[in-house]
Amino acid sequence: MTKVRTPFILVNFKTYSEATGRNAVRLAEIAERISLETEVCIGLAPQFVDIVSISSTVSIPVFAQHIDPIAAGSFTGHILPEAVREAGAIGTLINHSERRLKLVDIDTTVRRARESGLLSVVCANNAIVGSAAAALNPNMIAVEPPELIGTGIPVSKAKPEVVSGTVDQVKRINPDVVILCGAGITRGEDVAAALRLGTEGILVASGIVKAKEPYEVLMEFAESVT
Amino acid sequence: MTKVRTPFILVNFKTYSEATGRNAVRLAEIAERISLETEVCIGLAPQFVDIVSISSTVSIPVFAQHIDPIAAGSFTGHILPEAVREAGAIGTLINHSERRLKLVDIDTTVRRARESGLLSVVCANNAIVGSAAAALNPNMIAVEPPELIGTGIPVSKAKPEVVSGTVDQVKRINPDVVILCGAGITRGEDVAAALRLGTEGILVASGIVKAKEPYEVLMEFAESVT
Amino acid sequence: MTKVRTPFILVNFKTYSEATGRNAVRLAEIAERISLETEVCIGLAPQFVDIVSISSTVSIPVFAQHIDPIAAGSFTGHILPEAVREAGAIGTLINHSERRLKLVDIDTTVRRARESGLLSVVCANNAIVGSAAAALNPNMIAVEPPELIGTGIPVSKAKPEVVSGTVDQVKRINPDVVILCGAGITRGEDVAAALRLGTEGILVASGIVKAKEPYEVLMEFAESVT
Amino acid sequence: MTKVRTPFILVNFKTYSEATGRNAVRLAEIAERISLETEVCIGLAPQFVDIVSISSTVSIPVFAQHIDPIAAGSFTGHILPEAVREAGAIGTLINHSERRLKLVDIDTTVRRARESGLLSVVCANNAIVGSAAAALNPNMIAVEPPELIGTGIPVSKAKPEVVSGTVDQVKRINPDVVILCGAGITRGEDVAAALRLGTEGILVASGIVKAKEPYEVLMEFAESVT
Repeated sequence: MTKVRTPFILVNFKTYSEATGRNAVRLAEIAERISLETEVCIGLAPQFVDIVSISSTVSIPVFAQHIDPIAAGSFTGHILPEAVREAGAIGTLINHSERRLKLVDIDTTVRRARESGLLSVVCANNAIVGSAAAALNPNMIAVEPPELIGTGIPVSKAKPEVVSGTVDQVKRINPDVVILCGAGITRGEDVAAALRLGTEGILVASGIVKAKEPYEVLMEFAESVT
Repeated sequence: MTKVRTPFILVNFKTYSEATGRNAVRLAEIAERISLETEVCIGLAPQFVDIVSISSTVSIPVFAQHIDPIAAGSFTGHILPEAVREAGAIGTLINHSERRLKLVDIDTTVRRARESGLLSVVCANNAIVGSAAAALNPNMIAVEPPELIGTGIPVSKAKPEVVSGTVDQVKRINPDVVILCGAGITRGEDVAAALRLGTEGILVASGIVKAKEPYEVLMEFAESVT
Repeated sequence: MTKVRTPFILVNFKTYSEATGRNAVRLAEIAERISLETEVCIGLAPQFVDIVSISSTVSIPVFAQHIDPIAAGSFTGHILPEAVREAGAIGTLINHSERRLKLVDIDTTVRRARESGLLSVVCANNAIVGSAAAALNPNMIAVEPPELIGTGIPVSKAKPEVVSGTVDQVKRINPDVVILCGAGITRGEDVAAALRLGTEGILVASGIVKAKEPYEVLMEFAESVT
Repeated sequence: MTKVRTPFILVNFKTYSEATGRNAVRLAEIAERISLETEVCIGLAPQFVDIVSISSTVSIPVFAQHIDPIAAGSFTGHILPEAVREAGAIGTLINHSERRLKLVDIDTTVRRARESGLLSVVCANNAIVGSAAAALNPNMIAVEPPELIGTGIPVSKAKPEVVSGTVDQVKRINPDVVILCGAGITRGEDVAAALRLGTEGILVASGIVKAKEPYEVLMEFAESVT
């Protein structure tokens, strides 16, 4: 996992208009500036169509939001891992709460990510699903209680037991997996709380993308982990 | 539908390695050259990640292979119509046999395409499904019997009654819809046969992308419709 | 369609506990009594596991809530049309808003229903989807705006234009289809309003199943159509 | 898990016509007879519509082929765990290769099975998926390489390492889970081989249902484990 360092902040652009097309590139440039200034590793997960523009503009790690469990061939409308890699991504989210996958497909997708040179971040909604995901040997697991996503109620404060429970259960099954947490994170202290619970980074979306001043908020996040 | 002219040849790049990344751009340049030389309208449907590179390289119409029935928001891993449009596409396939959609989602997706300035090409497997799709008011319908896709057995010869039946039934429900056909088309005479059956163009994938000499084959297609 | 007469009242039992197992049989007996007393045709759509008990207890028509587009074979966990028929059902809902299907699967499912001797009732959320469904030649179409389902706000009063628009558009494409409407229907006058808008019956669920006095409410429905 | 004893033979009726309706009841009676004669625990997984008929006819354990991760409510066309339980089933398959589920839904479904008094048998295609499933705490795991299902090539002979690997990996994560294996089992010696590899039973479908003499074959299976 030489392409990212922990503590790791991964910003999911979702399909927000504030993070589409030119807006996506602008947000990526802000993130790159903060990463260079603070030396904190910040990754970006833009929409598929924006991966090329962003990865050719900034030097920080770019992730896909999803890949399909397929090889090259007849899969119209699907996301080929190798295409995402050639476009400049170095990793991918898998099984995000807005794009849940079948168990057998997560297994295949984690393998396909590995084969095509992509880091895998499997999302989980609770500690048990996180520990099941750990058995599939992804590089990272991101635990996000879906009921907190987008609420501004930080998982690291509202459900610390979900975070620390996930850390415990995942590490028992697979001590090599890096654990992120997400949902409701909008302030630097939420990020710091997440790390104190044993995670090695966070997954954030609206907290940055929808912020009035993304630069200020992301800088606060980065400073809280240094 | 000022962005494409009939007869229309639409080349689906699927997730073929011959049509991914740099290969996709190279194939797009070949298609553009033929379109300029023959004045036949040729469209391209590359993978999502390649839309930006291709639409900024060539001047012929670019289509997405799929869009999701969503608006901007929290839809990680999905395809936002406006993002596809901003990336340079002017249309999209919908309901391809390798990416079938729910009926209610086709309805929403056709609307979302219209709202975001994308032409819609709804795929259908037979005349009845084609006529149901016609009721949803897309710009085009592409009828493709799935059992012939990728076989080299041309639908326009093996199942002419499916093609002409689709033309009849679709036109009765919605005379404004442009009808394409596809599956198994590998030679110029297959294209000409399709037009004689009442279609206004074709949807082709492996016949071009997997051809030893894509330039020769696509040129044969273009010449057969002039 | 000799197995049901119009005006037709179809009661969807969903997976309500008030309409599961013994409760389902009890509710079926109430419906049968009202149908015998009023001579109004009342159908029941219980859960799959309850079809045998209900169809062997009452003489009124029993529908499945869904069937799969399959033939006998290796389809663990799926609903075989012939099995539903042998269990005593004479029809089936297809594409209910809580069980939406792909367009190509609705086409196949309507055919499979016909082949196995089941009447097909395809659900639609609006007039356009209803007219697309009409092209597939089902026996009935039930239009239900999903945003009104379970609200007690009757579609026949809140959105009369959706109902009458569906009637117009469906009849233009396929004059033989019987049109039902549903969503929010809790009183006899809602049923009467639906018929005045050109439908030939209604699809109802919580309005009957969750009623304090199902006998009273269903009797009011039946009397309103005689 | 007092309702089944190991070694356990679970017969999946799928949607075979030989195991639908009256045929299903007849096959269930054969299985019951063999179970009584040999004292081997034999379970049956018929189609949903046949659960009531079978569980009211025979005294051996009946399983559903699938349940949905839902509670009572508005879920037209879905399988309510409590309805399956009231119909007489005492367990359920989950995530069969012909009915794969999302990871988060398997988690919820296993819980819902437990809450409604159903034993859970989660199917897996390989040892890694089996170990992920083990983290979800089902009662049993059935490993079935999909490429062998229905072939007559027994997993216990063709892929013994998949079976023994699954046993090892599952037991490391969750020693309480009972492990079954399946795919291609048609003879008593295949069953015996499965037990020697560390499983405590088998999941079988066509090997029994499609046999010319189901009584003979199932008797051979039962005798091989006594």
